[in-house]
Amino acid sequence: MTKAPQDPLTDLKAHLAVISDLAQAQAVLSWDENVYLPEGAAPARGQQLATLSRVIHERATDPKIGGWLDALGEPSSADEAALARVARREYRLSTKLPGDFVEDFTRIRSAAQAAWVGARAASDFSQFAPHLEKIVALNLRQADYLGYDTHPYDALHDLYEMGSTTEKVRAVFADLRDATVPLVRDIAEGRDVSDAPLRQVFSEPEQEAFAVKMVEAFGYSFRHGRLDRTVHPFATSFSKYDVRITTRYDPNFLSPALFGTLHEAGHAMYEQGISSSFDRSPLGAAVSLGIHESQSRMWENLVGRSYGFWRWAYPQVQETFPAQLGNVPLDDFYAAINKVAPSFIRVEADEVTYNLHVMVRFELELALLEGSLKISELPEAWNAKYGEYLGITPPNDAEGCLQDIHWSLGMMGYFPTYTLGNIMSVQLFEAAASAVPTLGADIEGGRFDGLLGWLRENVHQHGSRFEPAELLRRATGSDLDAGPYVAYLNRKFRALYGIER
Amino acid sequence: MTKAPQDPLTDLKAHLAVISDLAQAQAVLSWDENVYLPEGAAPARGQQLATLSRVIHERATDPKIGGWLDALGEPSSADEAALARVARREYRLSTKLPGDFVEDFTRIRSAAQAAWVGARAASDFSQFAPHLEKIVALNLRQADYLGYDTHPYDALHDLYEMGSTTEKVRAVFADLRDATVPLVRDIAEGRDVSDAPLRQVFSEPEQEAFAVKMVEAFGYSFRHGRLDRTVHPFATSFSKYDVRITTRYDPNFLSPALFGTLHEAGHAMYEQGISSSFDRSPLGAAVSLGIHESQSRMWENLVGRSYGFWRWAYPQVQETFPAQLGNVPLDDFYAAINKVAPSFIRVEADEVTYNLHVMVRFELELALLEGSLKISELPEAWNAKYGEYLGITPPNDAEGCLQDIHWSLGMMGYFPTYTLGNIMSVQLFEAAASAVPTLGADIEGGRFDGLLGWLRENVHQHGSRFEPAELLRRATGSDLDAGPYVAYLNRKFRALYGIER
Repeated sequence: MTKAPQDPLTDLKAHLAVISDLAQAQAVLSWDENVYLPEGAAPARGQQLATLSRVIHERATDPKIGGWLDALGEPSSADEAALARVARREYRLSTKLPGDFVEDFTRIRSAAQAAWVGARAASDFSQFAPHLEKIVALNLRQADYLGYDTHPYDALHDLYEMGSTTEKVRAVFADLRDATVPLVRDIAEGRDVSDAPLRQVFSEPEQEAFAVKMVEAFGYSFRHGRLDRTVHPFATSFSKYDVRITTRYDPNFLSPALFGTLHEAGHAMYEQGISSSFDRSPLGAAVSLGIHESQSRMWENLVGRSYGFWRWAYPQVQETFPAQLGNVPLDDFYAAINKVAPSFIRVEADEVTYNLHVMVRFELELALLEGSLKISELPEAWNAKYGEYLGITPPNDAEGCLQDIHWSLGMMGYFPTYTLGNIMSVQLFEAAASAVPTLGADIEGGRFDGLLGWLRENVHQHGSRFEPAELLRRATGSDLDAGPYVAYLNRKFRALYGIER
Repeated sequence: MTKAPQDPLTDLKAHLAVISDLAQAQAVLSWDENVYLPEGAAPARGQQLATLSRVIHERATDPKIGGWLDALGEPSSADEAALARVARREYRLSTKLPGDFVEDFTRIRSAAQAAWVGARAASDFSQFAPHLEKIVALNLRQADYLGYDTHPYDALHDLYEMGSTTEKVRAVFADLRDATVPLVRDIAEGRDVSDAPLRQVFSEPEQEAFAVKMVEAFGYSFRHGRLDRTVHPFATSFSKYDVRITTRYDPNFLSPALFGTLHEAGHAMYEQGISSSFDRSPLGAAVSLGIHESQSRMWENLVGRSYGFWRWAYPQVQETFPAQLGNVPLDDFYAAINKVAPSFIRVEADEVTYNLHVMVRFELELALLEGSLKISELPEAWNAKYGEYLGITPPNDAEGCLQDIHWSLGMMGYFPTYTLGNIMSVQLFEAAASAVPTLGADIEGGRFDGLLGWLRENVHQHGSRFEPAELLRRATGSDLDAGPYVAYLNRKFRALYGIER
């Protein structure tokens, strides 16, 4: 069958649309693996996913893509130019890594993950150390293949946060650290805050019903999504028309499911809001992990842990749990959900200490890649940093340098995106507040369409049309800046803890 | 990257393994579509499935397959010969249909399905008639592409039941009809049987718990499967390591979920029992719909509706539902689950009348394809056949010729496999009973490993190693024969209804 000749743009788009469909299919299989897979089906699912990866990789590295990209004429629109830019980047990233390297990495990562699970269970870093040694070496090789100007970390970090660099991260992290470390110390000397109201028995169906009510009020669409239960909560997208979230319920602690669901719904509303003109196109993907995290953290924290929000929501949670919360004043509940306490575990950290966890990892990743820190020295260096930044020392490796899965998955350069997301969440929220003068009153009244509408307009719809820094600049008028986030933390937590500036 | 040269068998196997993985991925997406898809995600899922189909079709029709098949030497084992046979058949079927035809068919089928839904809701055949006209024409074209010796129906029916022919079906159906029609008449004059015990309020969680207990006792593995809820129950396999079943619960009727689950578990145990030496190979597929149905109907009816089974199971269901069944004697329950009553709806039919529904469809399909029946005459012809075989006349098209989805999906030649399955279920069950002398006592004692073991050994493990007729012959020593089924129906139902032979 002879194919009708097409212009290179049409051919390119059709080819990328197939890749997008296959990647969505892969995401469905991964979701199912996490949510509903029978115990004995893991190897078979692994095989199915490996084959899909291979088929996608074959298409993503097809030299025809290079040909079409070379043959593209002057773009006839900004979106066409953006598509060419994104397609060039993805083709470059896909083709830069030799097949042998990718296979090595996959194999070593599998072994590292299994070793990490065992090492963490035994709280014994030495079991994981030889694997981490290989992971670091592979990341350095990967950085070499991908190319960089200044620091190998740039090449790795750019995979997750296009356009961001080690230097930029260092600069904003320095600002944030200098503000956060003294704030944590001051809070330790402030008034006592108890989270006892949250640590009672809360039935799972009622936790779920309340969380669903909240995220529906935010604007998460169950017509284009669903909520399931998993050990590790996540959001995943199979196109903007099907963006699913998961959560886990602790029957003795209200926070994990509630704030976890608000967080994942924040991620999901971003995906649900991408312009449908980008369906089946690489422009239809969320642009970076940092921007993604800015959305989840905004709904979780700037809305979901704000006093104004709970003026509206608190009577409803009291009605759901009258025995547990009927006699707890709003101010006590608000304090409980915002309690600051240095801890060892990043994912359970409060808003103030969270970024210190991230900074520890960022600095240690840099030192490992630069070779200034030996693998064997990692546990000690980790514990020293926790002492310096958080004033506490992990009692063992499991609660220390073995707590996060990322390195065992081969991912270095990922952690900073969590804090970049926090920083941008405040920059974006304040821009929204300027543009929507009723924002505060809206939230106190349970009306979220003003905020969501602004985010849709200024962030969500754009997908990957703009690079993250440009998206931020267009939405806020500013570059990445820790200032507003620092001010927000000081304002909120100095008031809550009754401490002087 | 230059590939190492391989022998054609190795290359062929690797190529088919990828197709198998992709087909399993497609099955996951279809399962999710039926079970958990958000309402607004249907078009996106349709697109993902269409792309997977296209990618699979490209690989399945890759001329390299033809090259490898031509280059294969003498098979070194029976399994190698079987693989070559199955691969040749699939390559032939995949390549015989022109791309334009497949696209036309897909498009016309989509329109036909939508029209059928509307026509059934309105109970108005005229809305569906022009679509059925096209479906018949397309099936005739398809038969021409696929090729046949005697009757176009042969080519279509062979897609579902390899090696079966119109003439063979006609012959066994004639035997069965001649025995069934008088049996139905006699039963109508036999004693009254009431299914009132089944038509009470049964809570869904308890229905589910009991059904799960039964299929676990049968040997369905939840380690390699799961049970979910859907409007239309089904079983689906994503490799033998993950075979899932679904059911639906009627809170006012015990039968649908209970017998539906036993039925789907029968299908699923077949897939779970295929030899792992056929993983990722076309030999790892169930060989035909008829053989598949023989397994589901065996567990549903020959075990699940037998007196011996309920001697063991009845005290348990009474314990689960003491208020509803505590005072109902076993004999009344056994009669209730075996009540024979001519009805309009195939899927709700009892064991005796079920095949008459199938015969009506088979005969009408033949007449439509032969052109001896005009589309416009179908409702009348349908109703006349129901009068002749079942003694009842559908009051409208919805309960008449519009009740089944198959034709709207473009499928003609499929229906006979339901009855072939029934017939083979008895042939296989009797062979198992000969080989396992304790079978009856085992079932009365709730022990099913003897039966399942025999089925594993003689049916399940073989996957597509043997053609259906050969599989049946090896397992039973006989060819397809309605005799044992007719004898079984007469024995069971004449006793139950107290009527003379």
